Amino acid sequence: VTGLFGGGPASARVAEALSDERWLAALLEVEAALARAQATVGLIPRNEAEAIERACRSMALDADGIGAEAAATGTPVVPLVARLRAEVGEPAAQHVHRGATSQDILDSAAMLVARTALDAILEDIGRASDAAASLAAEHRDTLVAGRTLLQQALPTTFGLKAAGWMTGLDEAATGLRDVRDQRLAVQLGGAAGTLAAFGPAGPALVSAFAAGLRLAEPVIPWHSLRVRVAQVASALGVAAGAIAKPARDVVLLAQTEVGEVGEGVAGRGASSALPQKRNPIAAVSALAAAQQVPGLVATILALMPHEHERAAGGWQAEWLPLRSALLAVASAAAWLADCLEHLGVNAAVMSANVARSGGLIVAERIVAELAPQLGRSRAERIVASAMGDTAAGVLGADAALRQKLHELEELPDLDVDDLLDPRRYLGSAGVLVDAALAAHAEQVRRR
Amino acid sequence: VTGLFGGGPASARVAEALSDERWLAALLEVEAALARAQATVGLIPRNEAEAIERACRSMALDADGIGAEAAATGTPVVPLVARLRAEVGEPAAQHVHRGATSQDILDSAAMLVARTALDAILEDIGRASDAAASLAAEHRDTLVAGRTLLQQALPTTFGLKAAGWMTGLDEAATGLRDVRDQRLAVQLGGAAGTLAAFGPAGPALVSAFAAGLRLAEPVIPWHSLRVRVAQVASALGVAAGAIAKPARDVVLLAQTEVGEVGEGVAGRGASSALPQKRNPIAAVSALAAAQQVPGLVATILALMPHEHERAAGGWQAEWLPLRSALLAVASAAAWLADCLEHLGVNAAVMSANVARSGGLIVAERIVAELAPQLGRSRAERIVASAMGDTAAGVLGADAALRQKLHELEELPDLDVDDLLDPRRYLGSAGVLVDAALAAHAEQVRRR
Amino acid sequence: VTGLFGGGPASARVAEALSDERWLAALLEVEAALARAQATVGLIPRNEAEAIERACRSMALDADGIGAEAAATGTPVVPLVARLRAEVGEPAAQHVHRGATSQDILDSAAMLVARTALDAILEDIGRASDAAASLAAEHRDTLVAGRTLLQQALPTTFGLKAAGWMTGLDEAATGLRDVRDQRLAVQLGGAAGTLAAFGPAGPALVSAFAAGLRLAEPVIPWHSLRVRVAQVASALGVAAGAIAKPARDVVLLAQTEVGEVGEGVAGRGASSALPQKRNPIAAVSALAAAQQVPGLVATILALMPHEHERAAGGWQAEWLPLRSALLAVASAAAWLADCLEHLGVNAAVMSANVARSGGLIVAERIVAELAPQLGRSRAERIVASAMGDTAAGVLGADAALRQKLHELEELPDLDVDDLLDPRRYLGSAGVLVDAALAAHAEQVRRR
Amino acid sequence: VTGLFGGGPASARVAEALSDERWLAALLEVEAALARAQATVGLIPRNEAEAIERACRSMALDADGIGAEAAATGTPVVPLVARLRAEVGEPAAQHVHRGATSQDILDSAAMLVARTALDAILEDIGRASDAAASLAAEHRDTLVAGRTLLQQALPTTFGLKAAGWMTGLDEAATGLRDVRDQRLAVQLGGAAGTLAAFGPAGPALVSAFAAGLRLAEPVIPWHSLRVRVAQVASALGVAAGAIAKPARDVVLLAQTEVGEVGEGVAGRGASSALPQKRNPIAAVSALAAAQQVPGLVATILALMPHEHERAAGGWQAEWLPLRSALLAVASAAAWLADCLEHLGVNAAVMSANVARSGGLIVAERIVAELAPQLGRSRAERIVASAMGDTAAGVLGADAALRQKLHELEELPDLDVDDLLDPRRYLGSAGVLVDAALAAHAEQVRRR
Repeated sequence: VTGLFGGGPASARVAEALSDERWLAALLEVEAALARAQATVGLIPRNEAEAIERACRSMALDADGIGAEAAATGTPVVPLVARLRAEVGEPAAQHVHRGATSQDILDSAAMLVARTALDAILEDIGRASDAAASLAAEHRDTLVAGRTLLQQALPTTFGLKAAGWMTGLDEAATGLRDVRDQRLAVQLGGAAGTLAAFGPAGPALVSAFAAGLRLAEPVIPWHSLRVRVAQVASALGVAAGAIAKPARDVVLLAQTEVGEVGEGVAGRGASSALPQKRNPIAAVSALAAAQQVPGLVATILALMPHEHERAAGGWQAEWLPLRSALLAVASAAAWLADCLEHLGVNAAVMSANVARSGGLIVAERIVAELAPQLGRSRAERIVASAMGDTAAGVLGADAALRQKLHELEELPDLDVDDLLDPRRYLGSAGVLVDAALAAHAEQVRRR
Repeated sequence: VTGLFGGGPASARVAEALSDERWLAALLEVEAALARAQATVGLIPRNEAEAIERACRSMALDADGIGAEAAATGTPVVPLVARLRAEVGEPAAQHVHRGATSQDILDSAAMLVARTALDAILEDIGRASDAAASLAAEHRDTLVAGRTLLQQALPTTFGLKAAGWMTGLDEAATGLRDVRDQRLAVQLGGAAGTLAAFGPAGPALVSAFAAGLRLAEPVIPWHSLRVRVAQVASALGVAAGAIAKPARDVVLLAQTEVGEVGEGVAGRGASSALPQKRNPIAAVSALAAAQQVPGLVATILALMPHEHERAAGGWQAEWLPLRSALLAVASAAAWLADCLEHLGVNAAVMSANVARSGGLIVAERIVAELAPQLGRSRAERIVASAMGDTAAGVLGADAALRQKLHELEELPDLDVDDLLDPRRYLGSAGVLVDAALAAHAEQVRRR
Repeated sequence: VTGLFGGGPASARVAEALSDERWLAALLEVEAALARAQATVGLIPRNEAEAIERACRSMALDADGIGAEAAATGTPVVPLVARLRAEVGEPAAQHVHRGATSQDILDSAAMLVARTALDAILEDIGRASDAAASLAAEHRDTLVAGRTLLQQALPTTFGLKAAGWMTGLDEAATGLRDVRDQRLAVQLGGAAGTLAAFGPAGPALVSAFAAGLRLAEPVIPWHSLRVRVAQVASALGVAAGAIAKPARDVVLLAQTEVGEVGEGVAGRGASSALPQKRNPIAAVSALAAAQQVPGLVATILALMPHEHERAAGGWQAEWLPLRSALLAVASAAAWLADCLEHLGVNAAVMSANVARSGGLIVAERIVAELAPQLGRSRAERIVASAMGDTAAGVLGADAALRQKLHELEELPDLDVDDLLDPRRYLGSAGVLVDAALAAHAEQVRRR
Repeated sequence: VTGLFGGGPASARVAEALSDERWLAALLEVEAALARAQATVGLIPRNEAEAIERACRSMALDADGIGAEAAATGTPVVPLVARLRAEVGEPAAQHVHRGATSQDILDSAAMLVARTALDAILEDIGRASDAAASLAAEHRDTLVAGRTLLQQALPTTFGLKAAGWMTGLDEAATGLRDVRDQRLAVQLGGAAGTLAAFGPAGPALVSAFAAGLRLAEPVIPWHSLRVRVAQVASALGVAAGAIAKPARDVVLLAQTEVGEVGEGVAGRGASSALPQKRNPIAAVSALAAAQQVPGLVATILALMPHEHERAAGGWQAEWLPLRSALLAVASAAAWLADCLEHLGVNAAVMSANVARSGGLIVAERIVAELAPQLGRSRAERIVASAMGDTAAGVLGADAALRQKLHELEELPDLDVDDLLDPRRYLGSAGVLVDAALAAHAEQVRRR
């Protein structure tokens, strides 16, 4: 799954969890659980169930061979069951896969694989969020330019910025955790979802099967009701966006001309041609992975209306996009955690960048303070005329603005330095950081 | 919003709720709530807040004019605020929109609009689900062919089919309700999200503002954290799929050659050229609307990584896809409710279609019953050879199969009629319908 | 690339062409061509270029190892170049990758890989189209029900249906061929696209490089202009839809209750549980693959606005979706070719299905023929009342209709049998098939 | 179509062309052309065709009323034809819409609407491309930092940057023009695509119909072959990306800290709260519109596999996404043209930004020049150690680098100033601009 364009070593754990080998192991785990559950409810002899379980644990499987044979039936379960029956031998062989349909096994295995991948994803999103929390705490009062439409707008703090990243990650993690804990369920229904081959023991069997795999028990077989799969995909889509937000901000803050942050892993971010380059490669890699997810989510959503009791294409089409989406979010989460855990923050450059636009970054405040005595429109004209006096736009207007303010006859005692001090116009930034950190601590407790 | 290609009269209510006029009303409602909240926390005089509220309630606005002016600033809030200030007059005008940024108003208004639309969507999904529940109860034991990959596979009941539709709709509705009740929140932060213009009163103002609009209060301003918007979109995407599932099944069941259901609204479904046509137009219209949603969800997810404190394009790009997604799901839900509430079910044709494949639809049972005495592979060969004896495939194999079964020397007392009776191989279908209906009743109680 | 959920043996050739190993080979082929071209224009000594070429042809590479190292720089080219320099040894090592940037190598290699994959895809689409052409020719006059909104509407011929499939495939193939022949181009520009490291020889070098790889020479380096990649993706998206159209029709025609076609590969389409099943697995597999493509196209289109001279994430995100899209279309094309080459067509069932709706399938004709003498509205009422006389809808109305027509006093000589004969109302079906086949023959000549 | 969130006045022309009123006019134009063509081939009397044509030109239609009635049949053509018949009166009424099906009219009208919209889009893309060409010519030699992964990498020229924008736009325009000129075709087939209602005159009728509407004549009816629609959508998707590329670059170059360009329309780009803001609102609006397109393209591609002779949902779902995509690209193109035509370019700031990274921006050159005498690795170490000597990264390393270069004993005569002059390392930038401008001139000639 990794290979040449893999998500990087950071996501190797998830890549392994999503590998063909682990999918095969999950399929066998499901067959074993099915046999065990049938023994529990008395449908097959216990010792034969145990023989099946043993075979499921011990047998070696060849993904490429099974994949090749799968072409004849559209599902890898058919060749896998054939191999498993051969491995088990009679008489237990006849109880292998008894009463189940391929989709029962594959859907249940998909839930197991998704659970493992979501565990890893949640761990890495947690790491990223914790790193953002540390940045928020450390830089609670670090001045930085607030930028709207990529223009300096008002002063804010880097702590509030990082607290926003953290909050977005925590919200996305909550969505993923809810899906993992509440929506991953076994699928068992037989070919038409009636549990016909199990006789009256069907419902009890489903309960035992679910308990054995520690997955939820659905009210009704969901083979052609894809809400669960779609909710996994959707939560991944939301998480990808929440991860991409700080990654994009880091890339922008690390621009040569901005220079407010830098990635801090030695030897990382080199270029094949340019020895001076220090690319923010973890953030870039997080963005690269995250941006692959929305299209995959759309694919899975578009596949939802399965025909009748099993889709003709719509089911089989889910497997690769679901795997790709899990892998991409895992990669993005791991890269972002890496990025934020090693982020170098240059508070001096942040201050200097604010200073570059001089007092104009608090123009809102100037107008608000002057308006009561001068009227709003005259106050706005003062700001505008300061900008108009210079060809250099915002960056050159500071001196002109200061002079105009000093010359105001109506306000002889105006404390211009205070008025133009960006640190005096940070509003509730600190309070908001504190509140967000408290919410994060609560979220950490619930993990 | 309706117009030539609108979602049909069924969705007119939501179309109205998403119209430009209602968006403008929501923007004014937010400005009014902001003024009122500022009075509550003492930032502006109460009588001026009341003047603003009065103006917001009474003033008439021209969407096209505001839309045209919006082009100069990228947001309709700028021209709207200008008109509102003119309407209010001094001295209250200076307190209009005080300390807020355009995005505060637009994001909060979007939440109001989404709430209204989600209310209507949930009502129609509820109608559709209730109609499916009625079908499930009435047809709890109505035999129908279970079809996998569009081939007859095993017998099932139409009740179980309808119970599946109902369950999918209920699950999707739960997702939408959770988003509506927990994730719709006010946005208030000012240009950089620091609440700077409100001084120390900022956090209290946010509380009062949220209370006034009956929206959740976020821990931190979410102007550039789009998890909430993405979750609305995702839940809509899941709902679209859950709606499309029964719609697709209805279209397939209504095929001329299948003929098991028909839409029952007189005069509906006519053709411009073919007088004999009775198109299942409600199901088709539901599908047409639902299939527009996954791409819109992908758009909204892809926009999530907003730059810094306000996105340069990514925010402004959300409005139309969000509106389109709400409208499409509303249209799909209304059409599906209409379809299922008037669905004609032809149980006799369902039985006849099962009979067309004769005993072969219970081939799984035949093999399971014969295997203990004949071995699994010989049992499968009997089925296969019955099919092989005829050129007509499944449909012509019944007689051959019966004869082979009667001739089995090892099983002289085999009750072939019972063995091949599809009604004797429905497994837990009835029990599953009962369980699903009980879960639906619980869901109805929680609505 | 195949593995457990691979596209089936049918697409193994393309899977191989898109494997990590072939990507590495393509990267080395590009490095070799770059060295050779530099020798051609005199930038490096010819014998050193030859040493590099030899190394590129002979060295063995480990995709996983390179993939793992790629994480540090965001591109596999950096570790690949390091290995190549070590393999070549001094003095030639200093001329390896000289003046190029990673993206030059990767983009050019992507074009080579895409060309190989497109060659294979075009061959399989051609096979599918040829098979459809054979069906169209053989069944030029085979009666089948024309179905709109899945309702029988008017008679048509299976030949015209197949000719439509063929035409759609040919149009999509033309799009793919145009992209392959006109839009695949070398990328060479160096880090900023200025060819700075090559001095005045830059443009001549690009020409030699393009000639060496038999790729087009762009007017200007396209490293951050992704129109070419987007056009490859778009043409794949269109092809996926053109492939899915016949696959969906086959699945629908193969329904148990329709039974007009069947897939003809022995032993294919079995079920893990149901011995009687004959699933149209090639068509289902084609649909499963094709439906993965639109979301991937959206991803690649959304990535297009690369920042400045190289994207921070948007470039790196292209590789996997492009590979997935090529592989999915290849799989879909191979499966469809397989499906159509072995399609069993049951003309008798087609006729019988038309007969099931009796004369009503030509209701349009009845009205048109009767209208001149009876008026359009009375003619329509005759059709409607025939349908109204029976509870069974279209399927039961034939006898009533015939009687009503025989009883028409104004038209005592009406030849009812002729009027209701669906074969007498096929319009220009045959002529259209002939025209489409002629266009196909022209297309085959141009392949 | 415009309204509150419309594409701005810049795209009002296209919004009008895509309005319900113009769609209705197109539908009537198609009915008129159909009548005229039927008269031409002798199927209906000429004077009755003229009566129909007159009615089509003169009658007033109510989009909302037709839209509401459309719900009963799934297509606005049914109520439109009813109104047209009433308007025409007998005897011509019976010849209205004769032999056609709703889809014939709607698909043909969609082609007309698309053609008008594409004309406007191409004009605005042309304006944008011409503006980029002017910038490329004027700034052929204006130094600017080349940036990869948003880090300064190598010097380039603003002319080459603008030439890239121009080339991407020209390539996308070629794609749109090819689709407009070659792929827009009439649809005429009747309900099943056989032209049955026209008797042997069918093919001649199609020719006359196509000629009347100046659209291509397809080999075969394409009602369920959606390649044409998908190609329109794909070309729009590619165009959206080509438009978004320069828009994104402008937004990045206009950042406060970069300040290299600014939008130049007075009074544009103001903020509701911040009087000092000068937002690059045209570029932002172009991005906002363009980013809505990829998801719409995916929707249209996913809808392609229409069932049999008319889709049950997939056809009806096309109309809104196609309209949205046309409108979004039109808006994006108009905004970009506006942006580039008024772009202020600050060459002094561009130079100053290059100077900020001192000689390090030509590190590639330094290494290449020093390597022959010092070896590549020692040369790279000199660059690295210059950077290591300072805490300020790239921005502070210039002095250290210069000193190290002056102290090189092996190279006493090294002209350090020349070596570090970014203008001496622009490679073929100028030549590439010239070539691109020549290609653009050729493209302009072919418009």
